This record gives sequence, structure tokens and C-alpha cells, in this order.
Amino acid sequence: MASPPEIRIRSVGTELPGPPVDNDALVRRLRMPSQAKDWIEAFIGTRTRHFGFDLETGEVNDSLTDMGEAAGRRALKAAGAEPGQIDLLVMGTSTPDTLLPTTASQIADRLGIDSVPVYQLQSGCTGAMQAMAVASQLLRGGGYRNALVLGADTTAKYFDLDAPVKSLNSGAQVATVMFGDAAGATVLSADPDATGPVLRSVFSRLVGLNRAPGHTMNWYAATKPDPDEDIAGEDYKAIEQLVPQMSVEILDELLAEQSWKAEELDYVLPPQLSGVMTGKIARLLAQTVPGAQEVSCVLDTGNTANALPFLQLELLLPMLRPGQRAVAVSVESSKWIKAGFALELEG
Amino acid sequence: MASPPEIRIRSVGTELPGPPVDNDALVRRLRMPSQAKDWIEAFIGTRTRHFGFDLETGEVNDSLTDMGEAAGRRALKAAGAEPGQIDLLVMGTSTPDTLLPTTASQIADRLGIDSVPVYQLQSGCTGAMQAMAVASQLLRGGGYRNALVLGADTTAKYFDLDAPVKSLNSGAQVATVMFGDAAGATVLSADPDATGPVLRSVFSRLVGLNRAPGHTMNWYAATKPDPDEDIAGEDYKAIEQLVPQMSVEILDELLAEQSWKAEELDYVLPPQLSGVMTGKIARLLAQTVPGAQEVSCVLDTGNTANALPFLQLELLLPMLRPGQRAVAVSVESSKWIKAGFALELEG
Repeated sequence: MASPPEIRIRSVGTELPGPPVDNDALVRRLRMPSQAKDWIEAFIGTRTRHFGFDLETGEVNDSLTDMGEAAGRRALKAAGAEPGQIDLLVMGTSTPDTLLPTTASQIADRLGIDSVPVYQLQSGCTGAMQAMAVASQLLRGGGYRNALVLGADTTAKYFDLDAPVKSLNSGAQVATVMFGDAAGATVLSADPDATGPVLRSVFSRLVGLNRAPGHTMNWYAATKPDPDEDIAGEDYKAIEQLVPQMSVEILDELLAEQSWKAEELDYVLPPQLSGVMTGKIARLLAQTVPGAQEVSCVLDTGNTANALPFLQLELLLPMLRPGQRAVAVSVESSKWIKAGFALELEG
Repeated sequence: MASPPEIRIRSVGTELPGPPVDNDALVRRLRMPSQAKDWIEAFIGTRTRHFGFDLETGEVNDSLTDMGEAAGRRALKAAGAEPGQIDLLVMGTSTPDTLLPTTASQIADRLGIDSVPVYQLQSGCTGAMQAMAVASQLLRGGGYRNALVLGADTTAKYFDLDAPVKSLNSGAQVATVMFGDAAGATVLSADPDATGPVLRSVFSRLVGLNRAPGHTMNWYAATKPDPDEDIAGEDYKAIEQLVPQMSVEILDELLAEQSWKAEELDYVLPPQLSGVMTGKIARLLAQTVPGAQEVSCVLDTGNTANALPFLQLELLLPMLRPGQRAVAVSVESSKWIKAGFALELEG
């Protein structure tokens, strides 16, 4: 038996719906107090985000399926791949359009991908890594050549534009200004003729034992929401305390696993929780890898959860020169998952 | 490199919450017309089902996490496996307790499973096969030895006990009497010392191209449900037309793939949509494998979606003699997925 093939990132495609929404527009529409804008800039730091819904009417113009289809189509086109050449689809999201059918199935249908396994992972901020880990391990096992990997999230169902923001708990208020909508996709390939950076490693690992969830998203169907129960919650203190430290551990682990010296790392893709938090974490990571350039988009996109690493990859790939190396770091705070990947453009 | 290891089913564990609820009790509680009981018996055929909530008060006594924990604990105990020996957890469900954290993470926490990849697939009736396919391929790829695979569903959020049943569309009325709550689990192992039947094959494959969804489950968060939009829908005609034919194709495919003659199959695990439909499909499959014994539980449990194949496996394993073979068949009607597995107890 031959040794397992290298997995390459053949292409990346992304979708950011609608125009950027700045803090002025958000504060005005949500009838937040006038000091909210200063508060967002000081404590969140995100400047703009995109929404798949019309901020005035709430009407959804770009569903998760729409965004995922657009990103997937761009990734296929950039790879020069036909839908019939995709023999595995894996998607990560926390906010599917419907519970059934899965959004992954709907996107496959729109793209003309059929007669292959289609998996949708229920996942938070580490969903892109989870989907890439599953896809790359299935590719490595043989039987599949090209996988379309997607990550996307939408805030539409969590934005009640008619509800006064001050009725929300503080965690939900933070979430309102921290998140944005987006989709991303990549074609991963085990084809020996494929070009693109080699995915040297990708992992995700639950580290939540006996730790309370740092982030909660509830849902309802026919039954009425319990008025005493929050629809979403955010333990920002726990996130502030744990995410930076876990980020350093993930970077250290990937460098050690690849036997890469700190000075051999060219780019670092840090977690993208908020502008302020990403800034803090990037400065912390820079203590380990001072020569690595930070690749971030959170100031412009907000936290787009499952879509984020794809947005960062789209910024990275045109910069990546032969011989260069990058590490991406992600932490899921809902029940605490460490995740990351390491890639290298051979040369 | 050695050839990939055999994957064995070391154990199965299941959980059916509360007492069985018969059609009399269901019809009475939902204030259905008196002829509804005859209609359920004639067209659905299910006799009892279990619910994780109290049918009188609606109070949830057994959440998806509770049921999954119980099933997982039984599977671990039956395998004689410690939580620390599990190095991968994969769960399928269409109805997680919360969107984040995932129910898979919560169950891992309760069982003491940590520092391993935990994946939750958003899936319908083929979710058990999807989870088994992902887990067994990751096990086969090396790096993991034992995987806990879970499948579970709960109807709690779709039962509005205060709403008059006649306000529901006909699809939702069918769903009300067709589904039940349950969880199942299995320990899959790539350990050469493991005992139990060998999982010869397991697959799931989207076949939904250009086909409308046959089953829809919507969800809400902060936004109000659109009164014109159904929370759940069922195209029972499409299901009646497509599922039997697809079931025959899945059986044929697995027999051909394994080079098993029809008379060499000892057990068949058919889809478990409803008592009536399973009866029809079992008779159709018997035309191909007249000597194979049907293993079904739907009359007693209703359709428990992601949990079902585990309930069938629990009935099968004590009957399975050395040299015997079984095939399980499942179809997901939401966006049409074919799935199945083949197993054999060596002897």
C-alpha cells in the first residue's frame, strides 16, 4: 500500500452578503443609546460587518444556502473543478437555514453535486477546522479525490429588530454587535496533480470537560420560547480568560508537531472573536512567533464563526510564496474546542 | 504500511425514555377526533412510542443529552470500555438540545470523554449510518482505536400540546403520530483484539439532485415564526413513492459490493418510517432476500430517526451466530440520502 497522499488546498471562495454595515448604522437601527458606538469601538473594536438580511426590514436576501452556494461556486471555479469532480462535501455551521433538509444538501443541489457523501457538522468557531479535518482524513483514507469544504453562518434568526436591545442580557447585547454573516469554501484535494499549499495538519479536539459553556445558542420550533430562558448567552469573562491561553497552546502544539521553529513561521491566522480580542491574542502569539505576519479580517467582517478561516485563507493565499508556512488557530468557546491547521507552500 | 484494520461493533446501548405511549393516550391528549385512532392504526400502524417529555404537562424529563448519555453509558459498559479509551466521538441528530454547545459535546462531558475530536452531524433518518461511516473511515485511517458513535432524536420542541391538532397541516399531523424519542450508541473499534461483528461496509450518499425535499423541519430563535410558514412538513406521497424503491437499490448495492448471494443474507434491517410503511418495504425486500429475517422495532418505538439503527442493532446482536450476515437499509427523505451497512459475525 502506498503512503497516504498529501492534501492540498486547491482554491478558496468566500461570500460576504450586502454592503458593510458600520457601527453608526447598527446603533441607529437597534435604537441603542448614543454612547453605544463608543462602547463598541472600545470593547469590541469591530468596524463593519455584513448581514444576509435587510437591516431596515429584516427581510432575508441571502440565506445560508445562498451564501454557501456563492462561496462554493467561487471555490469550484477557482480550482477549475466541475461539480462532478467533487466526491465529498463537508460543511460546518451553527445556523442552518432549516434543521432538515440540511443546508449542505441544499447547497450540493444548487451546485449540481450529487451521488456523494454530504456531511453537515453542527459547529461553532472551530467548524471550518472540524470540516477540514473530517474531509482531509476521508481524502487521506482513499476512495475520494476532491472534497468541497464549506463553513458559513448567519445571524438572521437571532436578530429581532423589533425588540428593544436593552431587553437583552449583556451577553446577547455583545453578540448583537460582534457577529456578522458570511460563507467560505475550499476545494481540498488528494489528487497527486493538484497544486496549492499542502495542508500539513488539521485538528480539532474537545477540551470542555467540567467547564461550563462559554457561549449558548438556543432554538425553538412549535413550542413557545420560555420567557425566563435566554435565546443566546455569552460568558465573555470566561472567553477573555481562556481563549488567549488556549490560542498560545494551539500554536505551540502545531509548531512542535511539524518541527517548525518559531522563526520559520511566516503567517499566523489568529481567532477572530472581535477586533479587540483578536488584537490581544495576536500580540500574545507574536511573543512566540515575532516574525510571523498576522492575517485577520475581523475589523471589517466581525465574527463570522464557521466562515472565518476561509476569509483568512483568501487573504493569505495570494501572499504565500514558495517555502512559506502558515498556522491557523481557533477556539470554540461554547463547550471549549481547540482547533488549528498548519499549511506550507512547497518550493 | 499494513492494510487498514477491520472495524468491529464492540457493543450497542440504547435508551427509550418514559413509559410507552399508546394511540389511545396520544389521541386523547392531543384532542384528536375519535376516528383518529383507527386512522393511525390503518395508515401509520405504529402501536406505541416513547417521549422524553411528560405528555400531560409537556415538561421535558429526558433531554437529548440525557438520552444520549444513558445510551452512551450503556454502550461503554457493554464494551467494557473506559471513557479514556474512547478517542473519537461522532453523533448524528436532527434535534439537538441547543445549537451551541452541541449535544455531542455535552454528552462527552457527562461521560468523561475529553481531549478527543467530537463531531455532531446534522442528519435525519440516515444519521446513524452517516455517523458510523465517518467514524469507521477515521478509525480505518489510523490514529484512533475506539469511537463512540451516537444517534438520537427528540420530538419535544415540535409538540405544541396546547395547539389544536386540526390547525396543523396534514404532513405535521402525520409527523405527530409517527415519531418517537430515543437514543442509541455503539462502540466501534479498530483494535485487532476487539470482538463483535465486523462492519464490512457502511455508506451514505446524497441522491437529492433536482428532487424537492420530502420532509422539512424549521426552527426559530429570537425572531417570531412566520405565521404563513409551516414549522414542519411531510410529503408523504413522495416518501411512499421513493423510499421503497431506494431501499431495494440499497440492498442490491450492498449485496453486490460484498459479493454476497441473496440466500447468504440472514437478517435485514429495513427503514423504520412507520409500521405500515416498514411492513410494505420489508415485503418488497423479501422478494430479493426471502430467507433473511426482518429486524424491526417501529411498531413499539415509532420512527426515532437517528436512533433507529441502534435499536435494530440491539435486537440483532444477541441473535447473530458465527458466520451470519446482516444488511441495514435507510433512506433520508428530507433531501434524499441513501444509506446502509453490511455486517458479519466471523465464524
